[in-house]
Amino acid sequence: MSDNNVQIFDTTLRDGEQVPGCKLNTNQKLVIAEQLEHLGVDVIEAGFPVSSPGDFKSVEEISKLIKNTIVCGLTRAVENDIKVAANALRYAKYPRIHTGIGTSASHIKYKFNSNQDAILERAFEAVKFAKSFVEDVEFYAEDAGRTDNEFLARVCEMAIKAGATVLNIPDTTGYCLPSEYGAKIKYLKENVKGIEKAILSCHCHNDLGLATANSIEGVINGARQIECTINGIGERAGNTALEEVVMVLKQHPYLNLDTNINTQHLYGISQLVSESMGIYTQPNKAIVGANAFAHSSGIHQDGVIKNRETYEIINPLDVGVTESAIVLTARSGRAALAYRAKNVGYELTKLQLDSVYANFLDFADLKKEVDDKDIHQIIETSKVYQQIISA
Amino acid sequence: MSDNNVQIFDTTLRDGEQVPGCKLNTNQKLVIAEQLEHLGVDVIEAGFPVSSPGDFKSVEEISKLIKNTIVCGLTRAVENDIKVAANALRYAKYPRIHTGIGTSASHIKYKFNSNQDAILERAFEAVKFAKSFVEDVEFYAEDAGRTDNEFLARVCEMAIKAGATVLNIPDTTGYCLPSEYGAKIKYLKENVKGIEKAILSCHCHNDLGLATANSIEGVINGARQIECTINGIGERAGNTALEEVVMVLKQHPYLNLDTNINTQHLYGISQLVSESMGIYTQPNKAIVGANAFAHSSGIHQDGVIKNRETYEIINPLDVGVTESAIVLTARSGRAALAYRAKNVGYELTKLQLDSVYANFLDFADLKKEVDDKDIHQIIETSKVYQQIISA
Repeated sequence: MSDNNVQIFDTTLRDGEQVPGCKLNTNQKLVIAEQLEHLGVDVIEAGFPVSSPGDFKSVEEISKLIKNTIVCGLTRAVENDIKVAANALRYAKYPRIHTGIGTSASHIKYKFNSNQDAILERAFEAVKFAKSFVEDVEFYAEDAGRTDNEFLARVCEMAIKAGATVLNIPDTTGYCLPSEYGAKIKYLKENVKGIEKAILSCHCHNDLGLATANSIEGVINGARQIECTINGIGERAGNTALEEVVMVLKQHPYLNLDTNINTQHLYGISQLVSESMGIYTQPNKAIVGANAFAHSSGIHQDGVIKNRETYEIINPLDVGVTESAIVLTARSGRAALAYRAKNVGYELTKLQLDSVYANFLDFADLKKEVDDKDIHQIIETSKVYQQIISA
Repeated sequence: MSDNNVQIFDTTLRDGEQVPGCKLNTNQKLVIAEQLEHLGVDVIEAGFPVSSPGDFKSVEEISKLIKNTIVCGLTRAVENDIKVAANALRYAKYPRIHTGIGTSASHIKYKFNSNQDAILERAFEAVKFAKSFVEDVEFYAEDAGRTDNEFLARVCEMAIKAGATVLNIPDTTGYCLPSEYGAKIKYLKENVKGIEKAILSCHCHNDLGLATANSIEGVINGARQIECTINGIGERAGNTALEEVVMVLKQHPYLNLDTNINTQHLYGISQLVSESMGIYTQPNKAIVGANAFAHSSGIHQDGVIKNRETYEIINPLDVGVTESAIVLTARSGRAALAYRAKNVGYELTKLQLDSVYANFLDFADLKKEVDDKDIHQIIETSKVYQQIISA
């Protein structure tokens, strides 16, 4: 990893999935995890293993499936949580345990009925215990957004001393302004002893519509990981939207901050997550909303003051939105289906294509027009689905 | 207006309405305009009069209806546009003409096939001509986000010399970072001669998810007006969301920047606009999404690491979201209906309530549960609707 590389930590399957009524089953999580790897995220937070047998199983299965990406499990600063997470991650090629504790005055007093010294001790012990299972341990200082910087720096130092590789600085309530959040990261970068041994990570919530801006200010000020979800889903107003932070960095090359994301897959995975969870994106959602590139569909409006040629907005192709992506019908051939399936992340062999194509024709007869999200459904219901995802 | 007051310029009915397939008719615009006044916006941009007879009529009717709020009409830097706008605004108690021209190198070259001196001249002439009709003239420098600051300052000086009261600095393509946009406003505040005679205005687009942050950085750096739309609707990824910037300022009192918005009406008008235009907000939309306050509906989740008591997020009541807002049935009485109608912006007399209540019962029989957006529909279809909105 170069100094200018910003790691993308996807938490769609953990923080993103904490939405009432939108739980995913293990199979759905496997499909999404595979597409996240295909997208090029650096870390997949797969779940919170101690929270339920279902979550445990999802983390375990994702650990088996994923080959090149870090798989992460969440825990509290509690021995049993960490043991269970380590167990769920035992098949992962690159396992990470994500442990931590609340550090704001409010969390220390009301949540833990504790004091700063005891919190420092628990932070140290949790990281140290996690390190007995895995090398890669991320520490979160919950409610860091409302934590006094001086104490936060001490907590970070303790976590580093215990071996933390990543320090997550969450704006848990989504209240920081970009300048405040950026200043917090800068303060830590400049004042935490041993900070060169760990990466600072931004984890922002969108309660005031500022999650994207806060994350960007974080990396401008020295953080090198952003925690985010596809479509910005999550509790309340959600998390930082992966597609937004990635495109901000891509569109501002002078910042000299890169990610490993294959942006052409953004639209496909947005549709997949939206469909799987039943959480639709509004038409004016940045990057992935139905109208985000409405200019490309040839709108003509007399008297409009704007001349579209003078606009230099994102090329829809860069995020996987193609005109042809809109319609696929029962008259479309195998090549077209294979091409589109590849666009949304499935490499089909000739035999797999035969099976999927039969499903596709049945589907297209009923639905007339087949779009990218239908393709996911068609493939998921095909006889060769297990074969495809384990390829 | 105090130095700390940020004017809210609502453009839901102009820039917000430029969404394919979502045109509003004049009656719908009147209902929204009245609710915008009730919400406490300072300026209602009612349309672009020269663009169509329908837009002209809407601006004219809104001008007649609105009593305490500035009503604004958009024009290009073209004499006929300005004449037509002045005519559409002739009944307005507080009319404003919003005129301007593209100022970026790309706009000057490709859109106007012109040069900087000619643009300065046209800016001056347009403002001066508009001033012959109304006192309050706002000038926009289209694509200011990509305009060189030194030239932008010269354009602003010309507009002020011609009498402009407000200078709109649009990030037309939605590409500025918050720090860039804030620096641009700061530059103008410090370098434009005569800047004390005009207000700087932020007009940001959300293509990269940064519109809210950019507008906030703008006012932190000296702008005193924000142009925005309800739910952030608009072309492509939309405009700055009114509810977000208003709540950011309210939740950060140390910024010492106030608006005149009655935040309790935010949820009601969000529902009204969403329903009228058929553009739904996603559940994780900040402030007004269905899940934005999901914490208030008593979710219980075992093993969740977060203790809700330690969260200090927005009080749902502050933006008009009440538990009781969820269900109103055919068993509800007149008092309940009157109370809820008042919550969404209608003060009903006893006789008006009789008529509306009859409609309500018919509606509730069919729909079982009546929510705030239904109330708007019930009132709009009542016999006494004209009476209610002209009250």
